[in-house]
Amino acid sequence: MKIEVLKDITSANDAIADRNRGTLDKHNVLTLNVMSSPGAGKTSLILNTIDRLRNELNLAVIEGDVASKIDADKIDSQGIPVIQINTGASCSLEAQMITPALNRLPLENIDLLFIENVGNLICPAEFALGEHKKVVIASTPEGDDKPTKYPLMFTEADTVVINKLDLLPYLEFDFAGFRKAVEGLNPKVKIFEVSCKTGAGIDAWCSWISAEAKRGRV
Amino acid sequence: MKIEVLKDITSANDAIADRNRGTLDKHNVLTLNVMSSPGAGKTSLILNTIDRLRNELNLAVIEGDVASKIDADKIDSQGIPVIQINTGASCSLEAQMITPALNRLPLENIDLLFIENVGNLICPAEFALGEHKKVVIASTPEGDDKPTKYPLMFTEADTVVINKLDLLPYLEFDFAGFRKAVEGLNPKVKIFEVSCKTGAGIDAWCSWISAEAKRGRV
Repeated sequence: MKIEVLKDITSANDAIADRNRGTLDKHNVLTLNVMSSPGAGKTSLILNTIDRLRNELNLAVIEGDVASKIDADKIDSQGIPVIQINTGASCSLEAQMITPALNRLPLENIDLLFIENVGNLICPAEFALGEHKKVVIASTPEGDDKPTKYPLMFTEADTVVINKLDLLPYLEFDFAGFRKAVEGLNPKVKIFEVSCKTGAGIDAWCSWISAEAKRGRV
Repeated sequence: MKIEVLKDITSANDAIADRNRGTLDKHNVLTLNVMSSPGAGKTSLILNTIDRLRNELNLAVIEGDVASKIDADKIDSQGIPVIQINTGASCSLEAQMITPALNRLPLENIDLLFIENVGNLICPAEFALGEHKKVVIASTPEGDDKPTKYPLMFTEADTVVINKLDLLPYLEFDFAGFRKAVEGLNPKVKIFEVSCKTGAGIDAWCSWISAEAKRGRV
């Protein structure tokens, strides 16, 4: 009975997500749904990307948080259009929350939209928002076992970004084991290794985004 | 309508949690519900506690994970009774999942039961399990803004453990700001600072547990 209700919710969600994607496609807005555990570096990766690509692409951000507007304030301070969604008790953004945010953004002038999801490796994997790519960030201090413990998130990912490379000297993190676990769940996934603190690996990540944004415009 | 359903779920859950607590009280089993983000150190804190207190108290563990039995295997390797609960799509343990696990544990011989919840700062705050204390672990690399971003979890906590002190030289973490945010939400909370890697602060944490376990037996 409970499962049936969940199915109804997710199929209704998917229909709205498809409409959101249609709206985004009409305006050629490449949209990335960024997901991770709390504190893995979603906002930091978005800020790094803004810094590198703001002269090349017009960016905007939708911020999802249970509470607060801490992250939205950081984006706003960069002069980038940002809309905060507070989900309250809900552990994920859902497609219906995105629709009114899209209506408030100047989509005709935007090339790249980040949707920063709620910090959580479980619920956000279940809700399409209308994005073109799902990006999952895994940070080194969380440990290399996360793909095995949260398999749906890593199965759903188009791209996995391993962040906090700068902390590697002080941690145990088995890169080969992590990659093997992710690729076992998801053979087509693209993996980047970065440090949002030092900037290591950010060039490769931004090159991928640029290529995806150009491909969308052809 | 959706909110009404959630209320029904949580009040049904609370009734089962009360029955679980009754069972635990009958056998004088101090029970701690341990919650955190993925990779903040729940299993590491439990393993440190086993190491320090195993000659003083009889311990057992219930492990909650979406998938896998990685953590349960670590506990089992210490010769401590452990029961794995895989929640599948569910983002939290619920009281009804705990009842059959309690039936399978030798409660008459157990003094201290850890329930390691699913790695998530949102859903587990909403479901009582029958525990005596809610312990929330926050790790330094997650950042000091977590109480503001996940207020319900820090409001529900009886005890907050700040873990990964060993990484402090390589991070920015405002202890005073973190404490102020937690105490603003929750004036009665008890806060410990530890490193599960170096053992710093573990004595104070274990002294608190010992005192709580003794109090339960009076």
